[in-house]
Amino acid sequence: MASVSAYRSGHEVRTVAVIGCGLIGGMWAAFFLHRGLDVRAWDPAPDGEERLAAFVEAGLGDLDAVGPSGRERGRLIWCATIAEAVEGADYVQENAPEKLPLKQALLDEIDAAVPADVVIGSSTSSFPASQLQAECANPERVIVAHPFNPPHLVPLVELVAGERGAPAAVDAAYAFFEAIGKVPVRVAREAVGHLANRMSSALWREAVNIVAEGIASVEDVDRAIRFGPGLRWAVEGPHMLYHLGGGEGGLEAYLDHLGPAQEARWGTLGTPRLDAETKRKLVEGMQAEVAGRAMGELTQRRDRLLIALLRLMAEDEAGANEKTGKGAR
Amino acid sequence: MASVSAYRSGHEVRTVAVIGCGLIGGMWAAFFLHRGLDVRAWDPAPDGEERLAAFVEAGLGDLDAVGPSGRERGRLIWCATIAEAVEGADYVQENAPEKLPLKQALLDEIDAAVPADVVIGSSTSSFPASQLQAECANPERVIVAHPFNPPHLVPLVELVAGERGAPAAVDAAYAFFEAIGKVPVRVAREAVGHLANRMSSALWREAVNIVAEGIASVEDVDRAIRFGPGLRWAVEGPHMLYHLGGGEGGLEAYLDHLGPAQEARWGTLGTPRLDAETKRKLVEGMQAEVAGRAMGELTQRRDRLLIALLRLMAEDEAGANEKTGKGAR
Repeated sequence: MASVSAYRSGHEVRTVAVIGCGLIGGMWAAFFLHRGLDVRAWDPAPDGEERLAAFVEAGLGDLDAVGPSGRERGRLIWCATIAEAVEGADYVQENAPEKLPLKQALLDEIDAAVPADVVIGSSTSSFPASQLQAECANPERVIVAHPFNPPHLVPLVELVAGERGAPAAVDAAYAFFEAIGKVPVRVAREAVGHLANRMSSALWREAVNIVAEGIASVEDVDRAIRFGPGLRWAVEGPHMLYHLGGGEGGLEAYLDHLGPAQEARWGTLGTPRLDAETKRKLVEGMQAEVAGRAMGELTQRRDRLLIALLRLMAEDEAGANEKTGKGAR
Repeated sequence: MASVSAYRSGHEVRTVAVIGCGLIGGMWAAFFLHRGLDVRAWDPAPDGEERLAAFVEAGLGDLDAVGPSGRERGRLIWCATIAEAVEGADYVQENAPEKLPLKQALLDEIDAAVPADVVIGSSTSSFPASQLQAECANPERVIVAHPFNPPHLVPLVELVAGERGAPAAVDAAYAFFEAIGKVPVRVAREAVGHLANRMSSALWREAVNIVAEGIASVEDVDRAIRFGPGLRWAVEGPHMLYHLGGGEGGLEAYLDHLGPAQEARWGTLGTPRLDAETKRKLVEGMQAEVAGRAMGELTQRRDRLLIALLRLMAEDEAGANEKTGKGAR
């Protein structure tokens, strides 16, 4: 059981305010509605309401394809002002464009309008929590709750309290996201890119280096990941991968025997620059890989496979829980 | 159609010699047999034949679970000497332990015994082709053909000719592996770790850094990959991921708008050392993640999910080919 907390959490959260309804906010709205939560939405764009309706329709279609949530769909309420949107909300998800003064002003306004026991999560991919909290009267409940694209399908949510954020606010958000089937993780110290984007950037830096140095083509780099470690990373994280690579001795044996080889390999990795020549190689290589397929076709293919993959993971987990007698999440 | 080549290739390859039958060689043997090829196997261990039989049985079970190959199973022939094993082979896969003099001596012996139109592929993960070829009379047909673990399940095979290897030998191996349902890639220039292990190492370096710096726990790092970018990397490579992240403008637009932010993030990535303190943090964190589960349980879970994932990918490909009228691979 979760420990008692001052913040609204877990199944107590019935109504979510979604502030900023571009692609990220729109897909958050679809996800919350699918999980049976009421959504109060606001966006300053003149066509914001229509745009949100389209995102929600598309997102709900994808989510139904993954599987039923077992909950009655929530209600979507379009609101004319921020004050109206956050009224009665048990949790607020902010998804404004990545401009710090804009986000600070919005978060300040939200913070001033909602009770102190409501957690406010920001979808920011680039700003540390401490910068977002800077203008707020109650900085301790303003945290980062960063999804991974596409946010309605990918389960990960990175939670960061930063130096002024309350660990209890992260605990509350953790329990909330877990209750609705997301996979929250805790980022204990602020870092540019949180966790997943840091590691993605590290991998991509070497992927760029391989192309820049003429070691392999853009397409072969992508195939090497997709049909190699990518398949395994869908099943286990990087540390677990080396744990299983260590035989009966696990990660400790791996570090003892192959740690020095890893360190030596780290020393050979590249530090490319995205200069004009490298950009040209990347763009030309991507044109060869795309081979005339339209962007919509590529995105549909990705989402179709992601949906099938998520359905598979859910079935596997349900099967495993059945065996162990553990309840479904 | 593949261009005419001096090397035996594609469906011409009916018999494969597997030299060295530990886990890697054993799982290669299972894969080749499943694809209808005859396998002539040699290993110097006194219990080599029994060990191989066990690997082959386990590997064939996994491969049957992925799906039928549509080909009659090949014959497994245990051989007392290398000369006997390579007799009549159309392709040779060498899988000796990662010791350079040992591999060089073996490859020299194989090279001396087989006709010049037979390609010899080494499973080496660490040695460049040029070092493996050093002692051979016919270095041009001795190449790297590196699988990704577990080799019977993961489709990737990295092909490297090196400076003295013949591009036509790589072409022949490429057509051979494609004909039996592997996903070969070309490594145009020798590089430590080929492609996939370089990128895996780059990702892991930052995964280690995140733990060493106290940014997140071992378990949360693994969850962040598995339930975040890992799911996407099973579906698309890292370059394609940013291509789809660039909107209608694709990778070029991404590089123009977010290239500088990526470069800035690269500048913040860590360069950890695997010192005693970091090793301790990794091992303790892994113990928490493992939570008492036995190694066999973790490996079985991985293989069960990998098999389900591969079946899914094969079904999706078959469905896509049906739509486009393309034949199954």
